[in-house]
Amino acid sequence: MLSVDLNADLGEGFGTYRCGDDAAMLDVVTSANVACGLHAGDPEIMAATFALARARSVAVGAHPGFPDLWGFGRRRMPFSAPEIERLVAYQVGAAQALAAYAGHRITYVKAHGALANLAAAERPVADAIARAVRAVDPGLALLAIALTAQVPAGEAAGLAVHQEIFADRGYTEDGQLITRGLPGALIDTADAAAERVLAMVREGAIITAAGARLPTPIRSICVHGDSEHAVATARAVRQRLEGADIALASFAA
Amino acid sequence: MLSVDLNADLGEGFGTYRCGDDAAMLDVVTSANVACGLHAGDPEIMAATFALARARSVAVGAHPGFPDLWGFGRRRMPFSAPEIERLVAYQVGAAQALAAYAGHRITYVKAHGALANLAAAERPVADAIARAVRAVDPGLALLAIALTAQVPAGEAAGLAVHQEIFADRGYTEDGQLITRGLPGALIDTADAAAERVLAMVREGAIITAAGARLPTPIRSICVHGDSEHAVATARAVRQRLEGADIALASFAA
Amino acid sequence: MLSVDLNADLGEGFGTYRCGDDAAMLDVVTSANVACGLHAGDPEIMAATFALARARSVAVGAHPGFPDLWGFGRRRMPFSAPEIERLVAYQVGAAQALAAYAGHRITYVKAHGALANLAAAERPVADAIARAVRAVDPGLALLAIALTAQVPAGEAAGLAVHQEIFADRGYTEDGQLITRGLPGALIDTADAAAERVLAMVREGAIITAAGARLPTPIRSICVHGDSEHAVATARAVRQRLEGADIALASFAA
Amino acid sequence: MLSVDLNADLGEGFGTYRCGDDAAMLDVVTSANVACGLHAGDPEIMAATFALARARSVAVGAHPGFPDLWGFGRRRMPFSAPEIERLVAYQVGAAQALAAYAGHRITYVKAHGALANLAAAERPVADAIARAVRAVDPGLALLAIALTAQVPAGEAAGLAVHQEIFADRGYTEDGQLITRGLPGALIDTADAAAERVLAMVREGAIITAAGARLPTPIRSICVHGDSEHAVATARAVRQRLEGADIALASFAA
Repeated sequence: MLSVDLNADLGEGFGTYRCGDDAAMLDVVTSANVACGLHAGDPEIMAATFALARARSVAVGAHPGFPDLWGFGRRRMPFSAPEIERLVAYQVGAAQALAAYAGHRITYVKAHGALANLAAAERPVADAIARAVRAVDPGLALLAIALTAQVPAGEAAGLAVHQEIFADRGYTEDGQLITRGLPGALIDTADAAAERVLAMVREGAIITAAGARLPTPIRSICVHGDSEHAVATARAVRQRLEGADIALASFAA
Repeated sequence: MLSVDLNADLGEGFGTYRCGDDAAMLDVVTSANVACGLHAGDPEIMAATFALARARSVAVGAHPGFPDLWGFGRRRMPFSAPEIERLVAYQVGAAQALAAYAGHRITYVKAHGALANLAAAERPVADAIARAVRAVDPGLALLAIALTAQVPAGEAAGLAVHQEIFADRGYTEDGQLITRGLPGALIDTADAAAERVLAMVREGAIITAAGARLPTPIRSICVHGDSEHAVATARAVRQRLEGADIALASFAA
Repeated sequence: MLSVDLNADLGEGFGTYRCGDDAAMLDVVTSANVACGLHAGDPEIMAATFALARARSVAVGAHPGFPDLWGFGRRRMPFSAPEIERLVAYQVGAAQALAAYAGHRITYVKAHGALANLAAAERPVADAIARAVRAVDPGLALLAIALTAQVPAGEAAGLAVHQEIFADRGYTEDGQLITRGLPGALIDTADAAAERVLAMVREGAIITAAGARLPTPIRSICVHGDSEHAVATARAVRQRLEGADIALASFAA
Repeated sequence: MLSVDLNADLGEGFGTYRCGDDAAMLDVVTSANVACGLHAGDPEIMAATFALARARSVAVGAHPGFPDLWGFGRRRMPFSAPEIERLVAYQVGAAQALAAYAGHRITYVKAHGALANLAAAERPVADAIARAVRAVDPGLALLAIALTAQVPAGEAAGLAVHQEIFADRGYTEDGQLITRGLPGALIDTADAAAERVLAMVREGAIITAAGARLPTPIRSICVHGDSEHAVATARAVRQRLEGADIALASFAA
């Protein structure tokens, strides 16, 4: 029986600010990427999110980003790869500690926003992240954007690497995300997203804008994104997969 | 043979700002309390300080404080005990990760500034810190201000607790630090500080302003403080102790 | 014909975080208290809020608070009165500049959250705020919580002082806000709030929990607050006042 | 009689951190560029620096930079030109308010660090800064790096523009600063710096590495920089100029 993971970015508020409907998302996903306090999140939100995830048996990952609360980690900040290595180590450790505090356990790391995009495109940045994860805890898995530099970087560091696709994004012919603003960048409806995800998981391949199949070991589906209907999309994806007898389970159980 | 630890607060810069002569201090102390990024310190400084300490075989502890860079952690911030618990867990985890990254290992936790003073005076805050440490890693020791609420709180949490005295501060008749600004609060010269420390370590007692002896298992001496001559004081204390055949060694080797 | 001002706190997001429905509120109020970047707000949000207010002919005030984004300015931070004086001056100047940038003009200052509560209760803090306002621009008015230390402080500094009441809060027998959590602290429905406001404006008096009338020159009504239905309450208050032929207009036109 | 201004960056500490010897510098310079709280400085330091400058009759300018305390404003941050416009307006207003609070008055604006370098090289950024200054107060002068995009941008905005040279930096054949790390980028000794400055002021020209003269209306000399001997260099420059009967005076008296 096929099995796949559903992941979303959670705990992305700060102080009294909130972002998204975490409680609803935690009823749908199997893995929660939890912000670590530098681009979003704070110790209160982190601990609360870990506790909620634990109560629902949702796996949790550290979700490090650039130290950029103002830009929500979506801006490429001027840090060198060695600096990024330390930034990631810091955040992973903080997340591990608060997960332990909440009775849960971090099992993987996934980079956030501009840091993730940079690591997808530039191998030295991907290496820096992978080295940081290994230095902190080589038992942690890396949740990597499929077919990007993140994958070989994680493997070179000796980490377990799991590849993810995005439910609501279109793919170029070489398996990269279509840049936002370009035609086909966003999948508009929850149904369309669910349909695509099912096809890609079944075929074990990323389906490009032109319809090509790029064989990929898809282990997780990211259901968070820019769409306003994140929860609806997540539910639609989950239902469609379950309806096709595909099990939903964390890759890092 | 008697043995005692010498500890100092290090890594207290931020970005391009520096604070104190860390390299010089690391040649004198046996334990370095390293700021964790919320009241001082950043991932760059933390990693560099851990690496320097490792090269000198100096033990390292997490030194969490209030999230108050502006006030350097010296102001009592409006956080509840449960919030403090999460703040401490966050910082301890971040420090553990960066120590591991630098090839070193956190062996203890010591609270900083206003957080330390609060935990010395208020048992619920001391309990919060001790619980946070235990939740993150029960193998970590607690470096506690002697004869304060920090001691029973750490013991109640099942942690190894080591008590410290301050080389450059005077003590009241009940073993508490004389409030700054009052007569006798500060020991003026490095020689006087060294002399006092030797007497206290030899006698296994805190010596009060009136000359009374309060038996105390003194395991560490804090040589950092408000004096401008921190390094000179630290050296004088070390030399005096070594001259009296007292071994200098981390309590957490 | 009676005239009164309707004010609300606006521009309280930060970066990508948003707080409340500013556009809707700006269609209802006659004065907007705009956060200045230390407890909420940033230059982007400030400039955008000033531009929106200008387009609707809504007066704008600087709304300084404690430098506490984490706590949204609702926590009493450990600043002295002289430090508060500088903090307020800084924020007022920044707001003036961005208002000018947006083609608008700051006409008043109103303290936010914990800073406002502190200034209501403690005259030295109220004096600090008033002195800061005068130092920056003596032509600025002070929007003060009615019957508190803010009023005489502003008058002593030579500022024009306008007193406000809260639409959704109950009052003690000496005209202070009933502490949250106590019975009668919050007015539950928009209708009840509107009814009370109309009565108080007509009678020129604060109406206490016991029904006593405390004569007060009510120049403004704060319609923002903790209620989830801020916009609905604001609209109800406005409609009730207009229905009673009371003009809605800024005190600082 | 020739007259020239001597300017330096001051008030660059934060909280308890200090940077440079402001008191000594204020005895030498005729203009102080004061950090505005986003890359360095805070309301306490700003007010204190303005008060010190006033007591010494030193002119003060707002010294806005990127919001990057971690990087001290020296990193190119990912802000668009319109965002920079708001960032600059915010900081200029805050500085004006605190200068007024301290009984002084901002007479000019000079960009800091990476923001200044960006505005020197990219006209749209220079335009953004100039527009921000004009929007806040068209009576403010712009202190511009000589022969860069800052000059025409300021003039196009209708501002009074004054050009500065750097005492401790070498110049390329087109009048730009030689990039750090390259030969000739830094003038090593205070004497050499003073000698060069005197020659350039007398000749009314920037002297390039190859000895060419680029006619420039030099109105100010920046004596702050990366050299460790900032105060010594400033004093040497001042003495050499005074010894040659060149008056030292703010351009914005």
